[in-house]
Amino acid sequence: MLPEVFDLTSLRALYAGGATPLDVVAILADRMAAADPAAFITPVAPDAMRREAAALMARAPEPNSLPLWGVPFAVKDNIDVAGLPTTAACPDFATTPAADAAVVARLRAAGALVTGKTNLDQFATGLNGTRSPYGAPRSVFDPDHISGGSSSGSAVAVAAGLAAFALGTDTAGSGRVPAAFNNLVGVKPTPGLLSTSGLVPACRSLDCISVFALTVGDASAIRRVAEGFDPADPYSRRAAPQPLPAAPRVGILAGAEREFFGDDGTAALYDAAASRLAALGCTLVPFDYAPFREAAEMLYDGPWVAERLAAIEDFLGRHPDSVDPAVRAIAESARDYSAVDAFRGQYALAALRRRTEATWAEADILLLPTAPTTYTVAAMQADPIRLNSRLGRYTNFANLLDCAAIAVPAGFRPDGLPAGVTLVARAFQDEALAPLADALHRAAAPGLGRDRAAPLPEASRVQAAAEDRLELVAVGAHLSGLPLNHELTGLGGRLVGAARTAADYRLYALPGTVPPKPGLVREPGFAGPGLAVEVWSLDPAAFGRFVAAIPAPLGIGRIALDDGRVLPGFLCEAHAVAGAEEATAHGGWRAFLAARRG
Amino acid sequence: MLPEVFDLTSLRALYAGGATPLDVVAILADRMAAADPAAFITPVAPDAMRREAAALMARAPEPNSLPLWGVPFAVKDNIDVAGLPTTAACPDFATTPAADAAVVARLRAAGALVTGKTNLDQFATGLNGTRSPYGAPRSVFDPDHISGGSSSGSAVAVAAGLAAFALGTDTAGSGRVPAAFNNLVGVKPTPGLLSTSGLVPACRSLDCISVFALTVGDASAIRRVAEGFDPADPYSRRAAPQPLPAAPRVGILAGAEREFFGDDGTAALYDAAASRLAALGCTLVPFDYAPFREAAEMLYDGPWVAERLAAIEDFLGRHPDSVDPAVRAIAESARDYSAVDAFRGQYALAALRRRTEATWAEADILLLPTAPTTYTVAAMQADPIRLNSRLGRYTNFANLLDCAAIAVPAGFRPDGLPAGVTLVARAFQDEALAPLADALHRAAAPGLGRDRAAPLPEASRVQAAAEDRLELVAVGAHLSGLPLNHELTGLGGRLVGAARTAADYRLYALPGTVPPKPGLVREPGFAGPGLAVEVWSLDPAAFGRFVAAIPAPLGIGRIALDDGRVLPGFLCEAHAVAGAEEATAHGGWRAFLAARRG
Repeated sequence: MLPEVFDLTSLRALYAGGATPLDVVAILADRMAAADPAAFITPVAPDAMRREAAALMARAPEPNSLPLWGVPFAVKDNIDVAGLPTTAACPDFATTPAADAAVVARLRAAGALVTGKTNLDQFATGLNGTRSPYGAPRSVFDPDHISGGSSSGSAVAVAAGLAAFALGTDTAGSGRVPAAFNNLVGVKPTPGLLSTSGLVPACRSLDCISVFALTVGDASAIRRVAEGFDPADPYSRRAAPQPLPAAPRVGILAGAEREFFGDDGTAALYDAAASRLAALGCTLVPFDYAPFREAAEMLYDGPWVAERLAAIEDFLGRHPDSVDPAVRAIAESARDYSAVDAFRGQYALAALRRRTEATWAEADILLLPTAPTTYTVAAMQADPIRLNSRLGRYTNFANLLDCAAIAVPAGFRPDGLPAGVTLVARAFQDEALAPLADALHRAAAPGLGRDRAAPLPEASRVQAAAEDRLELVAVGAHLSGLPLNHELTGLGGRLVGAARTAADYRLYALPGTVPPKPGLVREPGFAGPGLAVEVWSLDPAAFGRFVAAIPAPLGIGRIALDDGRVLPGFLCEAHAVAGAEEATAHGGWRAFLAARRG
Repeated sequence: MLPEVFDLTSLRALYAGGATPLDVVAILADRMAAADPAAFITPVAPDAMRREAAALMARAPEPNSLPLWGVPFAVKDNIDVAGLPTTAACPDFATTPAADAAVVARLRAAGALVTGKTNLDQFATGLNGTRSPYGAPRSVFDPDHISGGSSSGSAVAVAAGLAAFALGTDTAGSGRVPAAFNNLVGVKPTPGLLSTSGLVPACRSLDCISVFALTVGDASAIRRVAEGFDPADPYSRRAAPQPLPAAPRVGILAGAEREFFGDDGTAALYDAAASRLAALGCTLVPFDYAPFREAAEMLYDGPWVAERLAAIEDFLGRHPDSVDPAVRAIAESARDYSAVDAFRGQYALAALRRRTEATWAEADILLLPTAPTTYTVAAMQADPIRLNSRLGRYTNFANLLDCAAIAVPAGFRPDGLPAGVTLVARAFQDEALAPLADALHRAAAPGLGRDRAAPLPEASRVQAAAEDRLELVAVGAHLSGLPLNHELTGLGGRLVGAARTAADYRLYALPGTVPPKPGLVREPGFAGPGLAVEVWSLDPAAFGRFVAAIPAPLGIGRIALDDGRVLPGFLCEAHAVAGAEEATAHGGWRAFLAARRG
């Protein structure tokens, strides 16, 4: 049976089972013909999709032999795809690029197939999806309700099974809000992680290309393919991945900053997400959202609107009537700002960034509603600026404050509309944030896109990256509470646990050592009691420094434990134990010391 | 005999010899009374200096017991000193702060004594020193010639022996150009390394507090005391020191970008500095200065002038006639720029930053003239904007492009005026840049400030920081050319040299190992030939990873070498050599393998 939506796991299974990309594009062509006509501005024609699929099969005949082999994806229509018009939802602005945007080129090289260019709030200005002459896409759960924007069509395409993933863009929240309204995952990478070469700018210093997908695992896999330093993009940055703790402290909204505009359903889903995080081992930390909100407000009510004007100023001068009235009003509001205002805005942002550091000292991650509520298309059209502004309350700050964010579904309100929550972390924690976002998504079990009954595939589960630490067996004076233990803790060492050596080790009290130290020596064939030891972990540099400072006759070799592990640990040169008192029968150094004292 | 100028080494020797800070401030009071009256706007009165010296001696009676014990310093008069007016060289702007600027507070806490507030180009706008109602300080080498600016008085104070060091500020080059014109060292730290709390802004996003001193060692020591993260300064950054190679590639001017405005004397001194760097082991790399020049030109001929207007806009509105005409013209030129222009300027700068990366891929450091030439006060006053702009040709880019810089004296033109060169590196290479800057300064042997005959004190020599690497003795299959050597080189290991163990080690061929491996075991009292080994170095993390991967029965203990060193290296558990073939008589593993093959 064909899945209602195409997550990567299902798609790979289809291909492994003998289906071909030609089969998949045939299904997609049928579905696209029946879907929300506002989702795509330029769908790829069935013939062209078949040609692209055939070309892939010729280039890489083996199924699943490329990371995104035969994976259909939709592209927001402010991102270039060679040979298709880029409209930015403004017909008179359209040009047809000769080359793919850098990110599109990477995805196609990895085997992904473009299904079409999707609708958006014009010039990516908006979070609601109604600001387009190509129509307003609707939430896949209710044709009266907005899809969210500006990446409206991209979200609908994935949620409706018209693509396995889609590229959006996210300056204010355009890659997250539509995810919330369509039961999707939205990955907003750290600014600069994905190249913006080939993107029509909204705010050029802040624009991010984002990924909509059905699971965090899918979105992360796609983000990894899409990311990469691009010297042609002045805002591209080299990735510098940062870790997060295994049991992070998560900031949650508190007090007056907790605002859902009367939407108790979304508020309850936010609280449920917080509870799920606590159950997953996170510590919840109420925090003050005020400086983040103040930064968020600067994006439209401050000099950054000048970036939007800078992007379209020439076009607006030539074609004033071609631009959506709300979009035009926003861009033209920039004429009120001088260069002095622009720099004062930078100063204010720098001060806010400093204020938010107090939050980051207490919380590793923030949990926020993706959007505080949602609206009908009719309501949005009746009050387009004010309601749109509400939608960005919890998203607008993220790029101004150099954050990474992953929006995940949080479940459904009583009326059947989905809501989402977003985990926000600091720059370059994209990869580190994914395991928790995935676990939170799985705990909510909200289905996949429009298919509320679909289970999240186990194969897409995101594993936490193994910490880059090295283990070491402490035998004597470095054991917890003994005189040299501070040498381990001072280097950031962490106790992994108690352990026992295999039976063929002997322990000796080294004569004349201060503090007293033992020497451990292996004697194959000896059947002793095994010796109580401790396993510690250190990061590689600390491990190196620790080992390099160990004096003779001790050293670090391999110690076999009685549970089968063989770990680096303290051994002793054999010559040094000649004539030494043996401590083996005590079963460990601590017991030997206690017996000697007693 | 009293030194003509007070470098830290001479001053410490004076104090160690029994002189007190009271003696030094008495000398300074005499000298200041006789010095260029334009150097100080507000000298500290002799009585007040004595009180400050006495307070220090009460607080820290032991001579030299604080890092800057009794070290007199001057402060540019746009930086707050509690109780002294801050004028920014604009009398009507003056206010008297209750608190020291953050950097001043750090220096005073370290024992330094304020001698006064120094003259500057008004609002730190200028590189020449003539834009002040308090007069134009002159180069200590010629009363007709400019001192350079904007930190004019600070440079003159140090060069004339009125202070051991002085704080300047450096937005466009104000901490470097006056150093060149007064035979001084000028350290312009990485933006954000020194707090700007308590500074009257020039361009708030770019301003740096800088240090003038007589040697690179002095300036670096002072910079270390002054630097430190300041949460109250939104542009403060946490230091993240970056290394430089021991034998760096140094970019030198080439082609049309080599411009000295007809000053052959300065050009020759620049070439001499390049030759000295080559003699010091640097590789000279001609590079294209164009993108750096284009960035430099943006500082005054682009939207960044709006930062200068933002700093004084209110004051200028109230007191238009209190502002120097040139300074006012520059600030008011900002009114031509819109917020769109400001963001377009940011885009252009981002693109230039990207272009300069091509240079940094080929050169670790840039060597530039500090200023391409110098002028008389009369010439400067006759053509104030154009000639000032020439002075900043090689400095204006540094903060826009996030660089660290150290200006050092380069010697004297035939007419007896000094010129300087600047070493420029990337952010946070301040510390790494100092040893080469110091060596270059010493090679020029230009004296200290106005004292052309003074030798540079040996005690202030800047040593290159020891590399953070750990040594390891390779004994067997990890030796150069042997099968496991790639495990060392793959981790970045470097061969330090061949060595020989002490005589009491035995070497065995471990049975059944693939590739063949030896085991080294110490036997106290054994008098063998010593074994040929190699010393390798690894960074700590690589060392840790290497050790953690060593299989039993080998491990890393301490090996005594015949030259007395005792280094971490490969040892073997004794049980594993029972019955093994002994290789000791061959004098090393390589010789044993050769004999076995032969």
